[in-house]
Amino acid sequence: MRVEIFGESHGPAIGVVIDGVPSGISISAQDFDSDLQRRAGGKKGGTPRVEKETLEFLSGIFNGLTTGAPLAVIVRNLNTRPGDYDNLRLTPRPGHADFVSSVKQKGFADPRGGGHHSGRVTLALVIAGVIAKKILCINKTTSAIQIKSKILSIGGENPWDKKLEKALEKGDSLGGIIECTVNKLPIGIGEPFFDSLESVISHIVFAIPGIRGIEFGDGFKAAQMWGSQHNDPIVSKAGNTSKNGSGGINGGISNGNPLLFRIAVKPTSSITLPQNTVNIKTGTLEQLIIEGRHDTCFALRVPVVLEAATAIALVNLID
Amino acid sequence: MRVEIFGESHGPAIGVVIDGVPSGISISAQDFDSDLQRRAGGKKGGTPRVEKETLEFLSGIFNGLTTGAPLAVIVRNLNTRPGDYDNLRLTPRPGHADFVSSVKQKGFADPRGGGHHSGRVTLALVIAGVIAKKILCINKTTSAIQIKSKILSIGGENPWDKKLEKALEKGDSLGGIIECTVNKLPIGIGEPFFDSLESVISHIVFAIPGIRGIEFGDGFKAAQMWGSQHNDPIVSKAGNTSKNGSGGINGGISNGNPLLFRIAVKPTSSITLPQNTVNIKTGTLEQLIIEGRHDTCFALRVPVVLEAATAIALVNLID
Amino acid sequence: MRVEIFGESHGPAIGVVIDGVPSGISISAQDFDSDLQRRAGGKKGGTPRVEKETLEFLSGIFNGLTTGAPLAVIVRNLNTRPGDYDNLRLTPRPGHADFVSSVKQKGFADPRGGGHHSGRVTLALVIAGVIAKKILCINKTTSAIQIKSKILSIGGENPWDKKLEKALEKGDSLGGIIECTVNKLPIGIGEPFFDSLESVISHIVFAIPGIRGIEFGDGFKAAQMWGSQHNDPIVSKAGNTSKNGSGGINGGISNGNPLLFRIAVKPTSSITLPQNTVNIKTGTLEQLIIEGRHDTCFALRVPVVLEAATAIALVNLID
Amino acid sequence: MRVEIFGESHGPAIGVVIDGVPSGISISAQDFDSDLQRRAGGKKGGTPRVEKETLEFLSGIFNGLTTGAPLAVIVRNLNTRPGDYDNLRLTPRPGHADFVSSVKQKGFADPRGGGHHSGRVTLALVIAGVIAKKILCINKTTSAIQIKSKILSIGGENPWDKKLEKALEKGDSLGGIIECTVNKLPIGIGEPFFDSLESVISHIVFAIPGIRGIEFGDGFKAAQMWGSQHNDPIVSKAGNTSKNGSGGINGGISNGNPLLFRIAVKPTSSITLPQNTVNIKTGTLEQLIIEGRHDTCFALRVPVVLEAATAIALVNLID
Repeated sequence: MRVEIFGESHGPAIGVVIDGVPSGISISAQDFDSDLQRRAGGKKGGTPRVEKETLEFLSGIFNGLTTGAPLAVIVRNLNTRPGDYDNLRLTPRPGHADFVSSVKQKGFADPRGGGHHSGRVTLALVIAGVIAKKILCINKTTSAIQIKSKILSIGGENPWDKKLEKALEKGDSLGGIIECTVNKLPIGIGEPFFDSLESVISHIVFAIPGIRGIEFGDGFKAAQMWGSQHNDPIVSKAGNTSKNGSGGINGGISNGNPLLFRIAVKPTSSITLPQNTVNIKTGTLEQLIIEGRHDTCFALRVPVVLEAATAIALVNLID
Repeated sequence: MRVEIFGESHGPAIGVVIDGVPSGISISAQDFDSDLQRRAGGKKGGTPRVEKETLEFLSGIFNGLTTGAPLAVIVRNLNTRPGDYDNLRLTPRPGHADFVSSVKQKGFADPRGGGHHSGRVTLALVIAGVIAKKILCINKTTSAIQIKSKILSIGGENPWDKKLEKALEKGDSLGGIIECTVNKLPIGIGEPFFDSLESVISHIVFAIPGIRGIEFGDGFKAAQMWGSQHNDPIVSKAGNTSKNGSGGINGGISNGNPLLFRIAVKPTSSITLPQNTVNIKTGTLEQLIIEGRHDTCFALRVPVVLEAATAIALVNLID
Repeated sequence: MRVEIFGESHGPAIGVVIDGVPSGISISAQDFDSDLQRRAGGKKGGTPRVEKETLEFLSGIFNGLTTGAPLAVIVRNLNTRPGDYDNLRLTPRPGHADFVSSVKQKGFADPRGGGHHSGRVTLALVIAGVIAKKILCINKTTSAIQIKSKILSIGGENPWDKKLEKALEKGDSLGGIIECTVNKLPIGIGEPFFDSLESVISHIVFAIPGIRGIEFGDGFKAAQMWGSQHNDPIVSKAGNTSKNGSGGINGGISNGNPLLFRIAVKPTSSITLPQNTVNIKTGTLEQLIIEGRHDTCFALRVPVVLEAATAIALVNLID
Repeated sequence: MRVEIFGESHGPAIGVVIDGVPSGISISAQDFDSDLQRRAGGKKGGTPRVEKETLEFLSGIFNGLTTGAPLAVIVRNLNTRPGDYDNLRLTPRPGHADFVSSVKQKGFADPRGGGHHSGRVTLALVIAGVIAKKILCINKTTSAIQIKSKILSIGGENPWDKKLEKALEKGDSLGGIIECTVNKLPIGIGEPFFDSLESVISHIVFAIPGIRGIEFGDGFKAAQMWGSQHNDPIVSKAGNTSKNGSGGINGGISNGNPLLFRIAVKPTSSITLPQNTVNIKTGTLEQLIIEGRHDTCFALRVPVVLEAATAIALVNLID
């Protein structure tokens, strides 16, 4: 499964081409509704940019079933307001890719809403994730796999409603911790060294914008533990362990226990509070006020994207 | 730069083949001394398995200079004691890859000292790292790059000498936190999404056995911060920021500030204390006593491996 | 430059996503006119299926210039007549992919006009080729490169007009020989063994449907020559040779003389004459009459596709 | 199956690392004898350089069975005479890679016997081919596959003994045509477009030094045929065709009939006759007399290398 994503926040469309999809998988627009809904904005803490996301299937499907040929899907951008970004060309927003993409692309990057760097492009990841989950489902050895992400905390809080209210009030933003669990992953997925399960998972997870860290099992806490505490005693011939400090992985390979990892999502870079930045032409320091529509806490929308990324990684590993 | 590593803990040799090395780079055995020494055992907390590591250059070098053809280097294993592992075939060691590699390889994995999963194979990574650093050095835009790793803590302690003594006494093991800083990385390294700088770095870092987590800049702490705290104000036309919460990366692309990340190294899985495991033939629970030579805290030896991995990742990104 | 193509003969659209395009390249619809025109049908010997091919740029372009983000382009299929293929589901057309794609895709392949196997998908290759030629043009070391393909013979004839008339009359089809020359290719392109210049060129050339062979320089004739005849004497410090039997390549690497190769294009598989095939359900032999619109000699349309494929290969090699 | 080859004609060793070998395959030195013998020199028309080729298995094997870890094999070069090449540094041999590798590697390429470009490196391909054939054998769907290469002609002659005598007498060299047939290849191997069966086969075949062309089925002759002559009528539900003009491939995918292709091998570039070349320092034309040991017709030794290359390609396609 090879996934190619494209599109910009305020360009004509977001899209994805997926090569290597097995034939005979039933695909309909409704299959995507639930995941698109989970990713969509419009909820408390999410961006006020809301638009109907209509999938157009351009290839790879015949009579509602995949044909085995590359599958192309696009979603037109409808609710664009490129004008919102006119003042940003010279004053890059802290935390965003404005400055680096301008330098890397020699001034030719699309500046509107972060261009290709926009979180809106995760729409393509979610679409690919739905396909990936369907691929896992039709395969006998992987059909039992369950991928579930949940928010552990937002802004350091377990019940985060008040903190979110406060952020909205202040015009500030929040991040959070998301945990992903994969149940029923077969033993033996992953390779020693360069294609370890952690390598492949983390590679694609860091494709999601705004991730600051990933940890497996006991994670960073493991570095403070005794080996006798961290090691997972093996308690059955099937490899079950009595605890899961390793996050279901030994030597880069799944051990049959739940795959478990957590990611740290940074607070949204766009905030309403004034920020310091520089005018890249004159070099003078300026105070920046960000207009446009943005999430107060995009971590709230990350769980479905994380599941999608995980599903894509697993399809590639299991294939 | 394509790196292929091979070898087993108690097999004939550890080796590496590196394709894509530019021609004209001077290579001598001494170039590797310092890094091999840093990786070697024999120090407090390290494995008592010590052996002279003599490099044999099999190809890719002519008159002491690289030719541009694939470079192959091997190191013979001299100090092998495969007999130490005879009792492990049926009772997999907790935390090790014994169980998963046995299942994955249908019983044909080399069981001696973890076989190909041995930390000894990181010798090949270190050799490749020396070459990678030389490649960075000869390139005008990358010659100023400095990669430095240091231990932040062992077993949760900043000064860790006593904790290490205690571990040796108990027959237990420890992990640690290592920080890596890359100075003078040019702006623009990395791509949005699938080949983000974090993706490529974490992919190769998780190729090092025993890593439980990686975080960039503020890392997991970012998830508890306000956006106004975490964002790095830009203070110069060159993109300098007044703080480095992003770890030198925006939108998957280096921003010219130091690349900064930390990894969590788990405590060594092999401990002298008895552990619970299962006999995979009979299914009965057994108490396991691990013989053989092993590190009390292999995190102490990780910094040079982490620098090597980082250098390899950067060569591939910059290329 | 990574090229992903998609689409089916009678599906909604043909498209291409190109990743790795440098920023700042000017792109307009007119840039593609000449090459699309060369590929288009409607001329003598070409398919009577003719339709306006309107490019829609979905991403990667801002203000008429490439941004460095993935470039997606689609062309809607307008002149589809899927009904033409209703009788083909059970009786695969000789020479076409009907049978193999049906088996490979377990009956789910799109049967309309060959589905994804249609020559119509070469439209995507031609679009990518225009981009590839632009990339070569902006690079100082490759801007002088000239890629030119020409027809050497059709149906074995040097002047082939009469043969073509005869084919049209009979309802039969013809193939041909196309020669491609690349001038001003720098010395040193290609690698020994697996990524030899011949390997990379032939790999992509055989992506064009209906190619039966490729030969470089003296080609198959070389096998009958003496070494003293075939070897190219070197006559200048710059590597010029007094003849070009090697086609501009030594040891898989360009030698600074023109890169020269020829391909054999098979006669169009679709002919109006009745053909023998089998009913894949009943196993009975049947006579097949192919309806639909098709080329009498698609070799006539191949030169521009061959140039596109060559340009894509060179961008990848030179990059 | 990832194959990395290394070594130079007069360096310490030739070797190969193969990643992705399934575990449990029995490997002994004798398994390689027959293929190494077929590749070896010392026969009429072959190089007089003969040496015992002793395989050293460095990794990936335990108790005579593959472990699933990377398999490394080396063969020491014993019979080296680097002195033979002292006069070649300034006067590149026509037809060889001397000039291009010198330019590409900025003067640092190993000049002794062609360095890494030497035909001796095909030893590594043959070793990998033996492993590839074993991999095909253990897989139920591919165990019946038979790969056979044979010489069709040498120097244009069907019985070529006299022509070879003449070449030896004159100090000249010869090439030839080799045909490869793969029987019992399952239907469905290969992909449309970029990974067509022809693309993958030709890619690796052109990794063999000295190949000038490849053609499938009717090959170049197809370009002169009518479609009604070239098309293969389908005569059974299993896809059997009454002739095999397509070489067993439709639309880039195997059709269940024998895969059939031919390659053109150029005459050996090294000849005893004087040749014209240039002194790359002074630019003056010089007459070159090549010393050293070389084949009169290395095409005679190519069949086993072609089978190896084909086996490697098929493992990668079928995997």
